[in-house]
Amino acid sequence: MGLLDKIEYPDDLKKLDKPQLIQLADELREFIIDEVSSNPGHFGASLGAVELTVALHYVYNTPYDRLIWDVGHQAYGHKILTGRKNRFNTNRKLGGIAGFPNRSESEYDAFGVGHSSTSISAALGMAVSAQLNGEKDRHVIAVIGDGALTGGMALEGLNNAGVENTNLLVVLNDNDMAIDPNVGAFKEYLTDISTSRPYNKLKDEVWNMLGKFNRFGPKAQKIIQKVDNSIKSMLMKQSNFFEAIKFRYFGPVDGHDVVHLVNLLNDLKDIPGPKLLHCVTTKGKGFKQAELNATEWHAPGKFDKNTGLKIKDTCTTPKPLKYQDAFGVTLLELARKDEQVIGITPAMPTGSSLNMMMKEIPHRSFDVGIAEQHAVTFSAGLAAEGKIPFCNIYSTFMQRAYDQIIHDVALQNLPVVFCLDRGGLVGEDGATHHGVFDLAYMRNIPNMIVSAPMNETELRNLMYTAYKHRKNPFSIRYPRGRGVIVNWKHPFEEIPIGKGRKISDGETVAIISIGHPGNFVQKAIKILAAEKIQPAHYDLRFLRPIDEDLLHDVFKNYKKIITVEDGVIKGGMGSAVLEFMAENGYNAQVVRLGVPDEFIEHGTPEELYKLCKFDAKSIAEKVKEIFSK
Amino acid sequence: MGLLDKIEYPDDLKKLDKPQLIQLADELREFIIDEVSSNPGHFGASLGAVELTVALHYVYNTPYDRLIWDVGHQAYGHKILTGRKNRFNTNRKLGGIAGFPNRSESEYDAFGVGHSSTSISAALGMAVSAQLNGEKDRHVIAVIGDGALTGGMALEGLNNAGVENTNLLVVLNDNDMAIDPNVGAFKEYLTDISTSRPYNKLKDEVWNMLGKFNRFGPKAQKIIQKVDNSIKSMLMKQSNFFEAIKFRYFGPVDGHDVVHLVNLLNDLKDIPGPKLLHCVTTKGKGFKQAELNATEWHAPGKFDKNTGLKIKDTCTTPKPLKYQDAFGVTLLELARKDEQVIGITPAMPTGSSLNMMMKEIPHRSFDVGIAEQHAVTFSAGLAAEGKIPFCNIYSTFMQRAYDQIIHDVALQNLPVVFCLDRGGLVGEDGATHHGVFDLAYMRNIPNMIVSAPMNETELRNLMYTAYKHRKNPFSIRYPRGRGVIVNWKHPFEEIPIGKGRKISDGETVAIISIGHPGNFVQKAIKILAAEKIQPAHYDLRFLRPIDEDLLHDVFKNYKKIITVEDGVIKGGMGSAVLEFMAENGYNAQVVRLGVPDEFIEHGTPEELYKLCKFDAKSIAEKVKEIFSK
Repeated sequence: MGLLDKIEYPDDLKKLDKPQLIQLADELREFIIDEVSSNPGHFGASLGAVELTVALHYVYNTPYDRLIWDVGHQAYGHKILTGRKNRFNTNRKLGGIAGFPNRSESEYDAFGVGHSSTSISAALGMAVSAQLNGEKDRHVIAVIGDGALTGGMALEGLNNAGVENTNLLVVLNDNDMAIDPNVGAFKEYLTDISTSRPYNKLKDEVWNMLGKFNRFGPKAQKIIQKVDNSIKSMLMKQSNFFEAIKFRYFGPVDGHDVVHLVNLLNDLKDIPGPKLLHCVTTKGKGFKQAELNATEWHAPGKFDKNTGLKIKDTCTTPKPLKYQDAFGVTLLELARKDEQVIGITPAMPTGSSLNMMMKEIPHRSFDVGIAEQHAVTFSAGLAAEGKIPFCNIYSTFMQRAYDQIIHDVALQNLPVVFCLDRGGLVGEDGATHHGVFDLAYMRNIPNMIVSAPMNETELRNLMYTAYKHRKNPFSIRYPRGRGVIVNWKHPFEEIPIGKGRKISDGETVAIISIGHPGNFVQKAIKILAAEKIQPAHYDLRFLRPIDEDLLHDVFKNYKKIITVEDGVIKGGMGSAVLEFMAENGYNAQVVRLGVPDEFIEHGTPEELYKLCKFDAKSIAEKVKEIFSK
Repeated sequence: MGLLDKIEYPDDLKKLDKPQLIQLADELREFIIDEVSSNPGHFGASLGAVELTVALHYVYNTPYDRLIWDVGHQAYGHKILTGRKNRFNTNRKLGGIAGFPNRSESEYDAFGVGHSSTSISAALGMAVSAQLNGEKDRHVIAVIGDGALTGGMALEGLNNAGVENTNLLVVLNDNDMAIDPNVGAFKEYLTDISTSRPYNKLKDEVWNMLGKFNRFGPKAQKIIQKVDNSIKSMLMKQSNFFEAIKFRYFGPVDGHDVVHLVNLLNDLKDIPGPKLLHCVTTKGKGFKQAELNATEWHAPGKFDKNTGLKIKDTCTTPKPLKYQDAFGVTLLELARKDEQVIGITPAMPTGSSLNMMMKEIPHRSFDVGIAEQHAVTFSAGLAAEGKIPFCNIYSTFMQRAYDQIIHDVALQNLPVVFCLDRGGLVGEDGATHHGVFDLAYMRNIPNMIVSAPMNETELRNLMYTAYKHRKNPFSIRYPRGRGVIVNWKHPFEEIPIGKGRKISDGETVAIISIGHPGNFVQKAIKILAAEKIQPAHYDLRFLRPIDEDLLHDVFKNYKKIITVEDGVIKGGMGSAVLEFMAENGYNAQVVRLGVPDEFIEHGTPEELYKLCKFDAKSIAEKVKEIFSK
């Protein structure tokens, strides 16, 4: 029986001797490998944070002390040590535990996370509360990766925290990675201090300079030695970014030496004010393949834990490729055609498939770091100079750049092409990651073109259309996962801006869909054919400008209309249809299907479509219901 | 005849000798004082940037070189020197020039601005374009204040710019101010380097330490002197924040020495790669009152340029106070009542009137810097600990924190109270500053309560209601400017959540309004009374949850309905009414009045209401039109 078997909560952990923590960390790592190999989830980040997790819960008095994990990819160990070991096999499954820390799941999850760079701000709020309450014994700890630290709001948080004299510890988990390798000047700076370059460089220079004074004899040498030792400590402090903004800086230390971490954290508990502990870790630590290829093993899917081989789908019939790859392939084609085409991603080259262009045309492909705001306005700057920027941001992360879309792009009518990957319900990543607001928040921005393809070929052609159009900002949103067509790649076709298409005529009921859920409608129509019910199907394709001819056609011919979208019902495509109806004096029954007015948890996309009642079966049922009424 | 008279464009400026620039700067300053004293606008920032403006246009080849002013408060001098001197008296007036740089106004305005912290990202996009085009002679300059530099996206931009080897110059205009005094650790750091504190401190320490070695005799003293000189240059470089993130740092220099600035900028032109020039300036420079009280003179209104006295409204009848002051007074009352109440503003203590609480209860009032994202998540952290945070952010700036509202607050259902000042059309600040999207972007966020008071008393009671409720995030939006009631301050009354009110019955037509425009409806009803037309008037008060009882009442009794809101028509309150109608099977003519689907320029609020056709007269006309049809 191992040590981990005896541990349900941090109190159990605290009964161990320090040396036992090494064994416990090993067991925890094995447990994670075991679980994630059979029930896919995030992998490398949690392996890298095992020792840190053990040390933090060993030293601090959670949940009284507040522990906040930035992003939360790295928090599996935390979940396992805080009462969720036995439910860990339900991770990311419908009704199971969430893939990210979640306040409603455990009091040990001090703050819900998912998006990057929020931890310092939330932690400061908690630390200020503790201070106001006079709770001097309460510690607040934010654990943040070097990737997340490049997000603007993390820096906003640091700037504020530096002048609030609270009991805040920021643990910088520096593994040189976001999901892809971390980028930017700041990352280079961290590498510099990890290898003590500023100090070493200065020391070299001082020694060189002092070398000239050798003629002063051995006494001078002695002085020099003393000067050297003395400036070392001062310099390390003065030249430090974090010290500059009023944090006490400690490190860099080995983030995999659990006993050393425990000693260090114990010491830090007694030091008041804002502190930063810089830990150097290895993403995927303890699983060779993950250490060697951290991006691929960020969230690897099922694998054989002994061989490290991924378990591939054994299905032999060809499958459609992913939407993201249709984006990647198409962008590369456009970029080959035209030197003005630029690709931009905030830290998602692999997830967006922009890496295809990056590999072949690196000088026109930009990974700007976890920095959605900057990505959008950087794209605006490019567009202002006549470039054709394709700015790829997941729908849920685009919320971070809402102001930049309005203020920097749309207001100036700059032709930035926004490719919103992961639009709609994303499945297992859950509530923090569903891209369900974009249709609603994009459609009221003047000058903006808002579109969503029903399949990969349409995505390809919308990208081509945006490339040709160049008169407006142009948003194209598409879902996570696979498309629907195996042979999707045909010669480019320009689509008339603002024009949808009638897919099929029908009787009594018309269904209007936008984007991928059009495929659910197609399936629903097949289901209904058995009952001799044939609704019409229109694919709106553009939400803005909306196809008024198409809608006139619908409202003139049908009095019962169903709208289907993979986004919030409130204010979404269905509402745009209602607005058209009101403005044009039509009168019809309009039933809107989409994401209801609540946050949707995790589960497979299929489970969630069903839950939200716009899967094929639910659509068919709704058609039947209103058809016969 | 002065020098300025001869200057229309930068080409004319370039004909002057360097020493003449001093006189020109003085004349430019006089011109600005002259103009702004009679036609109110932003004042202090442009006075502080006069020499910088002259030097930049003298040295650089604008508009070929790209000059981007962050925020743009400081760009009056720029406008005057780039072809807009004779139109400057139309500044901020309907049809006149805009108060901020604007691409559609002049080719010299390389990038439109208004919101803070965008310039580095946009400039980097332009610099990368120039590099890709092989335009090695093109310079891109971003001028950014120390306040704007604390905005997260500026730091995202710096992080990216540091590793792109482009011809980018960031001019840091460091006046220690945002609109209010700048705050945060970063500001303290800038003060430190401006006064060379890190160097001085280290030098002192070295000297102290070396003092011990006096016994080594005069030779040692000599060595020490040499060591000291040598480490000075190294240290200044090594300990610099900007050098850490790969910028070459120059400064700090006197930003009011125009000849020195010209020489320096000429030198910098030859230095490749990302560079930062740190200029120390005085906000309001050259106008004593503005130098002494920069916040008050940020945008002072009309004043006597000789005496420095503000020209007060001579009207003697008491006027209603500003909505912002109703907020300030009420928050202070609540904070006095309850220690859990906290006030938060991102750099707008004066503009929001949070300064009232700040003055009396500083330890529970937080100015977090220009950092809307942090402000929201910091508030979430406070709320998670049981505090009652009132987070006050202008509607237009709240766009910056859209993701934080969804992801950090609403998803966790944390009871943060959002007070959105400047909701609706703000008038002279124009397109960048209108707060017209919030009703639409807030109403589809689950868990959120969305409200808007029709007057100051309602604002007061909504704040009290939010204070009492504490079960949901709660948004209260109200407009810029004065309220409508002189005696507004009555004992607190709790308003039932989600309940509107019927103000008056009527016949045939019902008007549903939300927020301040309810007063326009009231005026419209008075206008219509003369023609014996009496529409009903309902004040919705809450957009979410929407008052279904009230709407049933409306739809049961009226077949002609007008909705009035001070926000975008697409997706706004009127659309919510249409959604209710569709969901409940009603059938009525619904006409939606509000901000049309375009960006609205600057003008007085009254002019803009009229332009958007929801002023009292337009409402009355619309009622008449549908009444008789």
